Amino acid sequence: MEAGIGQPVTENVERRVRDSFGRQGLMVHLGAVLTEVRRGHVTIRMPFRRELSQQHGYFHAGGTSAIADSAGGYAGFTLFPDNSSVLTVEFKMNLLNPALGDALEATGRVVKSGRTLTICQLEVVADAGGRRSVVAIGQQTLICLAGRPDAGGRDASDRNEAKNPGRDG
Amino acid sequence: MEAGIGQPVTENVERRVRDSFGRQGLMVHLGAVLTEVRRGHVTIRMPFRRELSQQHGYFHAGGTSAIADSAGGYAGFTLFPDNSSVLTVEFKMNLLNPALGDALEATGRVVKSGRTLTICQLEVVADAGGRRSVVAIGQQTLICLAGRPDAGGRDASDRNEAKNPGRDG
Amino acid sequence: MEAGIGQPVTENVERRVRDSFGRQGLMVHLGAVLTEVRRGHVTIRMPFRRELSQQHGYFHAGGTSAIADSAGGYAGFTLFPDNSSVLTVEFKMNLLNPALGDALEATGRVVKSGRTLTICQLEVVADAGGRRSVVAIGQQTLICLAGRPDAGGRDASDRNEAKNPGRDG
Amino acid sequence: MEAGIGQPVTENVERRVRDSFGRQGLMVHLGAVLTEVRRGHVTIRMPFRRELSQQHGYFHAGGTSAIADSAGGYAGFTLFPDNSSVLTVEFKMNLLNPALGDALEATGRVVKSGRTLTICQLEVVADAGGRRSVVAIGQQTLICLAGRPDAGGRDASDRNEAKNPGRDG
Repeated sequence: MEAGIGQPVTENVERRVRDSFGRQGLMVHLGAVLTEVRRGHVTIRMPFRRELSQQHGYFHAGGTSAIADSAGGYAGFTLFPDNSSVLTVEFKMNLLNPALGDALEATGRVVKSGRTLTICQLEVVADAGGRRSVVAIGQQTLICLAGRPDAGGRDASDRNEAKNPGRDG
Repeated sequence: MEAGIGQPVTENVERRVRDSFGRQGLMVHLGAVLTEVRRGHVTIRMPFRRELSQQHGYFHAGGTSAIADSAGGYAGFTLFPDNSSVLTVEFKMNLLNPALGDALEATGRVVKSGRTLTICQLEVVADAGGRRSVVAIGQQTLICLAGRPDAGGRDASDRNEAKNPGRDG
Repeated sequence: MEAGIGQPVTENVERRVRDSFGRQGLMVHLGAVLTEVRRGHVTIRMPFRRELSQQHGYFHAGGTSAIADSAGGYAGFTLFPDNSSVLTVEFKMNLLNPALGDALEATGRVVKSGRTLTICQLEVVADAGGRRSVVAIGQQTLICLAGRPDAGGRDASDRNEAKNPGRDG
Repeated sequence: MEAGIGQPVTENVERRVRDSFGRQGLMVHLGAVLTEVRRGHVTIRMPFRRELSQQHGYFHAGGTSAIADSAGGYAGFTLFPDNSSVLTVEFKMNLLNPALGDALEATGRVVKSGRTLTICQLEVVADAGGRRSVVAIGQQTLICLAGRPDAGGRDASDRNEAKNPGRDG
């Protein structure tokens, strides 16, 4: 619904997204990889391993949601100005089918990009030997923190900001 | 709103919950620990480490949501009959504040327990040196799979069931 | 994602949907009209009038959500067996833009149809003199009450059922 | 979780809320009445009538959600500065039980109040001859439009603002 969604990003945007993703300790810990970075459209792939399972051996909904949340967050981030960062305000997932396969692929896609808030649709597909099926869909609201470069944060020198970024304040 | 929520569980129920939690590869991988198991009320604690962070060094919303989802799932499971298992149908999280602290504690609490569907409220609190603040709230719908013992699953001999549990079939 | 979504329905299904819609006092009260009934895909149109406004003169989010909920409910209902009825388990709406125009059109579309639960995506478009814009998107979970004909209900002779249909039990 | 929630409001705040509610054509049309206005805590009551029903004769989820949305919106609004207005960003409802009774009462309660975003919990209770039961719970995100008095809107002289308020900018 937004114009230009899915188009290529500039090198600068791609670098900002990949740098930020690389700082997400959780994505590394889950073995998740950024596979596609387009304008308002980002895909993350996460191969199956035992460490990602719920009690029946499927992918745990928590991991499914984690990559969906990051995919949406970075989809929004591709459209943000330099010198800003992104936080998730809320998200909601419907888990349609047991998440079983060699890997999951989560795609976030911007539906509405505003100055402050951005809304994404999320979709997670299971890839089982090339057979693909949708296992989850979601919706997400992001907030753009203008004037707060993404590379700052917990270890930044401005501790006050780092300690109290607020979701919107 | 449900009667008896928060009361002690039987040994049998506690064992079923702890066994099931122990099979959740993701909870182990995230360093999450089951700290409280009561009727319709379960708490999970997850100490901070770098592997759980998002790009600014806070807890990643995906990890926050993962423990909230498990806490709610097991809160529902305490009320299910033997020989059944639980799947998450959907959940929604509002992230109120940056999740920063020594540990997060997620509590799931049953609001409505039905034969098929169970609804939980979820709350995640950050514990920063004893100072506690709510960082996320959520709502969740669970489905009870009657006649499907929780210990089955991907490696069970009944492959048909394992392959096609359906969320509701 | 489901097969056959958007295909024509049988006369029988169309009649069941229209009969049921006609019994929804709220849809009549809001001036909403069923404009399209396809397999797993239903559209409802609601012309603007003062009685539908919020405090600034836009369509109230409650009315927007009401037609989205009904559109999704009937989209699911087209795929249900005879002698069953439908209830909404939960839904979530993101309001993207102020809902301003001559009319709103809500479409519900089935994404996953299960024996017990059905998941829909919802979209509401504002039509302002032919210029169309998406004002809201949503996700919804429905439950199929098998063996409970839709025409029953509050005035049915089986008062026990009418009084205690449960959402799932 | 916010301080002072549930405390009395000033006359000025009460008047702003009641004026705004009175301009919500939909609330009047549904027969809804503002019954309680406290700091971050607002209740709306809606007596049953045929015009509010779904196909089985219960309250339609759309009406249930409409009063929940307004209750939350005004709960947030009580904490906003003068000269601002409120819009709903998103909300999510779980419908726990069939909404049957003499009236519904929806309460919105602020959980987190930020400069830009405010998060509420929503609860809808059915009152059947004094017997009360929770029929729905929800979560909601509001945005504060600073510098945009609530009394403006569609008919305001500043048509540009009225036509393009944006949800966030």
